Amino acid sequence: MTFIQSLNAAWTNNNSLLCVGIDPDPTKFPAHLKGRADAIYEFCKGIADATADLVCCFKPQIAYFAAQRAEDQLEALIAHIHATHPGIPVILDAKRGDIGSTAEQYAVEIFERYQADAITVNPYMGRDSVDPYLTYPDKGVILLCRTSNPGGSDLQFLEVGTAQHPEKLYERVARLVASEWNSTGQCALVVGATFPAEIARVREIVGDLPLLVPGIGAQGGDVEATVQAGRTARGTGLMINSSRAILYAGARENSGEDYADAARRVAQETRDTINRYR
Amino acid sequence: MTFIQSLNAAWTNNNSLLCVGIDPDPTKFPAHLKGRADAIYEFCKGIADATADLVCCFKPQIAYFAAQRAEDQLEALIAHIHATHPGIPVILDAKRGDIGSTAEQYAVEIFERYQADAITVNPYMGRDSVDPYLTYPDKGVILLCRTSNPGGSDLQFLEVGTAQHPEKLYERVARLVASEWNSTGQCALVVGATFPAEIARVREIVGDLPLLVPGIGAQGGDVEATVQAGRTARGTGLMINSSRAILYAGARENSGEDYADAARRVAQETRDTINRYR
Repeated sequence: MTFIQSLNAAWTNNNSLLCVGIDPDPTKFPAHLKGRADAIYEFCKGIADATADLVCCFKPQIAYFAAQRAEDQLEALIAHIHATHPGIPVILDAKRGDIGSTAEQYAVEIFERYQADAITVNPYMGRDSVDPYLTYPDKGVILLCRTSNPGGSDLQFLEVGTAQHPEKLYERVARLVASEWNSTGQCALVVGATFPAEIARVREIVGDLPLLVPGIGAQGGDVEATVQAGRTARGTGLMINSSRAILYAGARENSGEDYADAARRVAQETRDTINRYR
Repeated sequence: MTFIQSLNAAWTNNNSLLCVGIDPDPTKFPAHLKGRADAIYEFCKGIADATADLVCCFKPQIAYFAAQRAEDQLEALIAHIHATHPGIPVILDAKRGDIGSTAEQYAVEIFERYQADAITVNPYMGRDSVDPYLTYPDKGVILLCRTSNPGGSDLQFLEVGTAQHPEKLYERVARLVASEWNSTGQCALVVGATFPAEIARVREIVGDLPLLVPGIGAQGGDVEATVQAGRTARGTGLMINSSRAILYAGARENSGEDYADAARRVAQETRDTINRYR
């Protein structure tokens, strides 16, 4: 199955638009894991196993592993998810972007080494910086469009259209991806939950293209506004990401030994809240 | 010393604007290194030791190491360069770009784990995605502006100005970085050698800001046009990158066992050609 097919199946089978973002921060781990050489793998495995039937995808953020020299634990985590929860796609959030010959190396890293089902990619370097990922026909390529951080507006909100046809940079990216870069049907877009009006605008431009939406939870995006702005006519089309609010639910409530149960509880609430507005 | 101070010193001490890009491709290694577990480290160390007195900086490209599970060899390489060739700064070409909390993790990866002196960063996510790197006061942050690949024009050449004040996206990035993001004096820009007119335009906008210029050699950029478009009044201001043409000079000439000597010869020719036009 391709990434897009798996995503469609998971939306239906798990009745969920929730993406659990896996950003392991060892300083927030429960005491019983601290100091273990495989603490990152164990923590993330616990989260994945506790939430796999509640999500449409997982999204590990590679920076959190690389900062801890934990590439091997990231490989093991993705292998575990594929073996134990088949059908749940894994997006590796890496936001790569480079010239073709270098992008080929990143594609080897992300798709062959880590066996991720999809990658996030930065569009600033243009079409030929994206092509090497698209040569893997089963994989997904998720382009940054409108990001959830305040500085996202610095470039993405620049006016690149004409007086007759105004268009902001993020709208141009949405249009380019939907009408040109997605010729093989492998693409999706990142659009932050902190800007519901812009999610709606992107949905208008791209038809049913899947949108990965970070920014609910810790970043403050509103679930109802996000779902209503971004859902397709079939009530899907969204991967709504929550990371810290789910991963560290246990640490907020108590000593955190039952962090996986706490994560499951918050993931279930988040999925149900999302579903209320579909 | 800060990255910018080291760079200035190396420009003078080595009388060189040459940056050797370190993109290790094991399929192009000489026979005597093939199959060795530390082949990547040994190959790159040979290149660095043979060229260190001819360059103003080294630029390993992290994708080539990550695709080969060779993070440990990249750590060892940078440690070797710092120990053996003090004063030659190492730019880790990683083109990262993410929200603040994730960028903090990438900064740990690049500056603390790998001990790189500078990082390349993608500007698409705006100012707050760059700030975490700037909290390391000795480090350099090199923002993508006008990249050397054909698709670079897809977004970077979009008109973002007004009829009265036309300005392309890459010019806006140059202006933003020079006038705002560089408040701590740590920034530089990437401008591809394949577009000399645009190097000249960026130089006009940014004053003496250092420019990292990929695209001579294998990518076809012209050295004379690059130097004349990009040098500052003092005849410096440029890190002109060559990777494949230097690294694999030996493989083109013979069986490649003397790849380091061949690399030194081409590096010297390249440095001298550059100097002819300063």
